[in-house]
Amino acid sequence: MSGTARELRVRRYPAGHVAADDFEVVEVPVPRPGPGQVLVRNTWTSVDPGLRLRLRPDAPAGYFVAFPLGQAMDGIMAVGEVVESRAEGFCRGDTVSHAQGWRDYAVVDPRAAQLGGVGTLTRLDLTDVEPQWHLGPLGGMGLTAYAGLHVVDALKGGETVWVSAAAGAVGSLAVQIAKLSGNRVVASAGSDDKVDWLREVLGVEAFNYRSGDLDGHLRALAPDGIDAYFDSVGGDHLEAALAHLSQGGRVAMCGSISEYESAPKGPRNLFLAVSKDLTLRGFRGSSNLHLLPDMQREMSAWLRSGDLVARETVFEGLESAPHALAQMIAGHTTGKTLVRIG
Amino acid sequence: MSGTARELRVRRYPAGHVAADDFEVVEVPVPRPGPGQVLVRNTWTSVDPGLRLRLRPDAPAGYFVAFPLGQAMDGIMAVGEVVESRAEGFCRGDTVSHAQGWRDYAVVDPRAAQLGGVGTLTRLDLTDVEPQWHLGPLGGMGLTAYAGLHVVDALKGGETVWVSAAAGAVGSLAVQIAKLSGNRVVASAGSDDKVDWLREVLGVEAFNYRSGDLDGHLRALAPDGIDAYFDSVGGDHLEAALAHLSQGGRVAMCGSISEYESAPKGPRNLFLAVSKDLTLRGFRGSSNLHLLPDMQREMSAWLRSGDLVARETVFEGLESAPHALAQMIAGHTTGKTLVRIG
Repeated sequence: MSGTARELRVRRYPAGHVAADDFEVVEVPVPRPGPGQVLVRNTWTSVDPGLRLRLRPDAPAGYFVAFPLGQAMDGIMAVGEVVESRAEGFCRGDTVSHAQGWRDYAVVDPRAAQLGGVGTLTRLDLTDVEPQWHLGPLGGMGLTAYAGLHVVDALKGGETVWVSAAAGAVGSLAVQIAKLSGNRVVASAGSDDKVDWLREVLGVEAFNYRSGDLDGHLRALAPDGIDAYFDSVGGDHLEAALAHLSQGGRVAMCGSISEYESAPKGPRNLFLAVSKDLTLRGFRGSSNLHLLPDMQREMSAWLRSGDLVARETVFEGLESAPHALAQMIAGHTTGKTLVRIG
Repeated sequence: MSGTARELRVRRYPAGHVAADDFEVVEVPVPRPGPGQVLVRNTWTSVDPGLRLRLRPDAPAGYFVAFPLGQAMDGIMAVGEVVESRAEGFCRGDTVSHAQGWRDYAVVDPRAAQLGGVGTLTRLDLTDVEPQWHLGPLGGMGLTAYAGLHVVDALKGGETVWVSAAAGAVGSLAVQIAKLSGNRVVASAGSDDKVDWLREVLGVEAFNYRSGDLDGHLRALAPDGIDAYFDSVGGDHLEAALAHLSQGGRVAMCGSISEYESAPKGPRNLFLAVSKDLTLRGFRGSSNLHLLPDMQREMSAWLRSGDLVARETVFEGLESAPHALAQMIAGHTTGKTLVRIG
């Protein structure tokens, strides 16, 4: 196959807020698969808060390595269709997921472990599920939500769980899994529309953290304290959680989106962890791959039965991905943010 | 029994550093035990970093309730001799521990749970052990050290463990238990004398955090990273630990002495907990009472065999307790800080 492909590249690291023109769309020849590789035409690509961490020259250690300037961006999830296969086990026409998103054609080697395994080339089972759900509830987002509740022992139910960024890709799944596991869920988000959706569609108690103060909201909705807190926000949210957690409470920390565009401050009341025997667990979906089969089995069943909703905000066209990222970080998207590639 | 007793009272909450004249010695009549109570003549009383937290009107929540001004101070451990018993199971002459220290005579009710159970009136077994060891390795200090290593799974051995405030009452025990459990221990303290003691007597690698920078010391002594960190210090120490912990590392947090006399700041690099799957566990000895029998059995054996050293800094006379506290917080004491009551 020949012709022209397009890929997104970082032109410069954003100074403050991400802007669409921090990126550029570059035309390149359609890449050709080598022996053992496949060529995929991407149909969906993912827009994740964690990308913001890779747009900093001072990206934190671990897997959050800064994207190189002027090159295709690696490690972003996509779903697509195999158009040419030189790899055993993959055929033309297969729908697959992999970690070479933000481009329309990708050469992928199934032998390369990507994103700790989450992004390794995988043929998708599409029985009764939409392909892009493999970028949301059935993929890394679902695994992060499920693993977070698992590591703080909140899948057993019977407790009060606060989920922040609860209308986001991971948060909206954490809310639903926590509720389906028998917990009482308190959810927070940054707009009245999101709060309405959390209340009316997901059926949980919710508040808008931009109106009123966190302490007041938590006192009102969880007067006896919270047992577990699912944190994607950090900053003032984490401090409020430490203040409202009950004795022996737990925090699952998977992100700190309030601090991705600024110099982070730590929680000033961390000492409460001592006086209340609290546990704070940082975690990533990819370090809990052993939970993937359980998660996919449960989530598929909930999706098929309609017990779990896969909310999406879809942007059209590869070139819309930078705008989608900026909109997501500004809090203007609900559920999983996706780009459909034309 | 009649006559005059003495007790210490807080005159004012210290503005910055603790000073001896923030306290006063007050003469009171020797108290008389009611039915079911005992009168104890204290012989040793404890001086703990946590007391500093109770000398703040804004004391953190939980058991760190501010000492009332102008009253006897409650909840401080002591060892003494029963001089009059009106309680079943206690006889004149028994050596006991309890939580009514910083006074020379105390009326104690064995039915009252004190300090979460750690401070409840207990008759002491003195076979081959010194009575004041029940305020150190065989008491709350030992339990805190043992429980901290337990909650971060560091009693299994085979790892690199950093212990801060390692010449202190809890730290010096954590160092020794971690080493006896088969770990490689890196210890830090605030003077060359303490570091010499850690190296020569306890036989571990050690550094003086006041000379050079924490990062440099940790890079030199733990070039492959640390697996667990025992934190009594907080502040820059906790940040350095987060930076140097390996994937899956754990922090046992039992105190934050660097921040007891100032406005606490949180660790600015807490996000590393996400990228490195770290777990931070706040804990107290008193919330791990179920470990007390195991701890006392192991510690007694180690103390009798000489494998474990119970280092003490002893101040003479009840009236020296405030000075002892100030000296301890300034870092001028080694091991367990004690007051021998004349």
